[in-house]
Amino acid sequence: MSLHDSHTDTLAPYRAMIETALVQALDEFREPHCLYDPVHYLFEAGGKRVRPVLTLLACEAVGGRAEHAVPASIAIELLHTFTLVHDDIMDSSMKRRGRDTVHRKWNTNTAILSGDVMMGMAMRLLLRSAEHAPRPLDVVDAFSTGLIDVCDGQALDMEFMLRSDVKADEYFMMIERKTARLLETSVAIGASIGGSDPDQRDALQRFAREIGLAFQMQDDILDVYGSEKFGKARGGDIIEGKRTWLMLECCDRVENAPHSSERDRQIAAMFRAGRPLTAEHVDEVIVMLDRHGVMDAATSIVERYTHSAYEALLSLPTSASRDRLHDLASSLMERTH
Amino acid sequence: MSLHDSHTDTLAPYRAMIETALVQALDEFREPHCLYDPVHYLFEAGGKRVRPVLTLLACEAVGGRAEHAVPASIAIELLHTFTLVHDDIMDSSMKRRGRDTVHRKWNTNTAILSGDVMMGMAMRLLLRSAEHAPRPLDVVDAFSTGLIDVCDGQALDMEFMLRSDVKADEYFMMIERKTARLLETSVAIGASIGGSDPDQRDALQRFAREIGLAFQMQDDILDVYGSEKFGKARGGDIIEGKRTWLMLECCDRVENAPHSSERDRQIAAMFRAGRPLTAEHVDEVIVMLDRHGVMDAATSIVERYTHSAYEALLSLPTSASRDRLHDLASSLMERTH
Repeated sequence: MSLHDSHTDTLAPYRAMIETALVQALDEFREPHCLYDPVHYLFEAGGKRVRPVLTLLACEAVGGRAEHAVPASIAIELLHTFTLVHDDIMDSSMKRRGRDTVHRKWNTNTAILSGDVMMGMAMRLLLRSAEHAPRPLDVVDAFSTGLIDVCDGQALDMEFMLRSDVKADEYFMMIERKTARLLETSVAIGASIGGSDPDQRDALQRFAREIGLAFQMQDDILDVYGSEKFGKARGGDIIEGKRTWLMLECCDRVENAPHSSERDRQIAAMFRAGRPLTAEHVDEVIVMLDRHGVMDAATSIVERYTHSAYEALLSLPTSASRDRLHDLASSLMERTH
Repeated sequence: MSLHDSHTDTLAPYRAMIETALVQALDEFREPHCLYDPVHYLFEAGGKRVRPVLTLLACEAVGGRAEHAVPASIAIELLHTFTLVHDDIMDSSMKRRGRDTVHRKWNTNTAILSGDVMMGMAMRLLLRSAEHAPRPLDVVDAFSTGLIDVCDGQALDMEFMLRSDVKADEYFMMIERKTARLLETSVAIGASIGGSDPDQRDALQRFAREIGLAFQMQDDILDVYGSEKFGKARGGDIIEGKRTWLMLECCDRVENAPHSSERDRQIAAMFRAGRPLTAEHVDEVIVMLDRHGVMDAATSIVERYTHSAYEALLSLPTSASRDRLHDLASSLMERTH
């Protein structure tokens, strides 16, 4: 996730807190080098720290002190980074943020084990924040739910690639866990540390979940057209056969519409069967997505989720942190424009 | 780890509690099947549940109720099993307890992800016990230390295989983390749930650590001679080039003794350089280990650690659970005879 610059000023102090604490936290873990060098490498790559910022802001938005949530916010970033390292092995990805992935730069065994230890590091940091929470075990509980659901989501994503009968609705079930849950966990943990009441915590979680769903859907839309800025080829997901809502919904519409062309039916059948679509198919698929109204429908879904996410924020008391949560969300979503 | 039958009667009720709770706990995790089927498969294989039994006994030995520690004891077994699944990938092991390993029966991606989710499952179960502890976060802290140190130990083990200058003492540093720490974590968690004072907890940890070291050293000794009962070939570790204390100490002695034969020096140099020793070398190596007094020294070390472990137990108040901890340890160590 990348942030537009215009909104980042109010968030800069939070990022600074996070980076300082991150350097300190990682410094406790140096040896064995073969285990921790990859961890340091991963964090040297930087990043916008969206999830840790969410944790700090959620904590403040319910009346807590951001400093108390700093170690937990780093725990969340470790959890997120752990999922990236292991996902990159599973997806055989060679690059991440323009640098070699850990399993490529070192090897698969190192990537497995360095990912694993990051879970332990994360738990230890989490505890430093949990002791400030009125109900400390809620913090750990939210973390464990995040971990379980992210694994569920990744498993569903892999399973979908092997199935020819995935329904468009199943896509939401998958990204809710794989993408949105970690954002939800980020605010849930911040809220617990800040001593939130259940309603505020629910509102924050709805905000994070819906921004997560909107963001992922929009990411899928952007992927269709590609992005020079983000170095992404046009139709990358299409060529990879990814089970995005766009493609699943398009197949549904093609299969059910009486006016669908033979060619559309042929392409839908290829996709369903997991037969590879190539770069040559991408333009045809884009036309097909437009003609069947899928791109418009997807844009509406993004707008609906984004609107609903902002609405959830309104049930929180007015505060600078609440405004910053809005800023953070809109900077994430600005990538459409 | 396997237990001799003669001591298991007093432990059977604990194992029964564990098995019942394990079935219930796993039943909450069914879908996605591609994620949880391997987890069920792993636990269907059974096992002596040494670590969970340690947790329950430690809890009782400090005056707590074993029922309170049951979920945590399953968390420990999940942590242990998670390390086995990932270690089996790293070691390319094809069999575990006579059955196909997960990465062989399914695939590496499934084995990575199923291992990962077991951490989340473990954390969730841990919390159910932690709420009974006077200091709940101590329970989570002990767990995170266990996870970190087991990863450290596995990393050191892998690193040792690539180094020609490993010292005999470094072996203890490695197995203390890779093998002993999880036993230590098992009792530390039980003690915390039972409301232990720091001295009792320290005594239990010393007991578990020293039994762990004794057990691993003895396992290394048994490996040299092989075991029909456990289906282990003679000198398996020697052929694999494992950096056991036996081999490291033997190399030290060979290199430093003026009377060492050329052949002994040659074999030591091959081992140091990581050049493969074959089944044909095993008999020669066994003679060498004996001639340089390494087997006798190793047996003394096992005895010293075992004795010291039992001594640690004596600082706990007399109780049936304390006796059962002794039983559990001696059943583990009976494999020598």
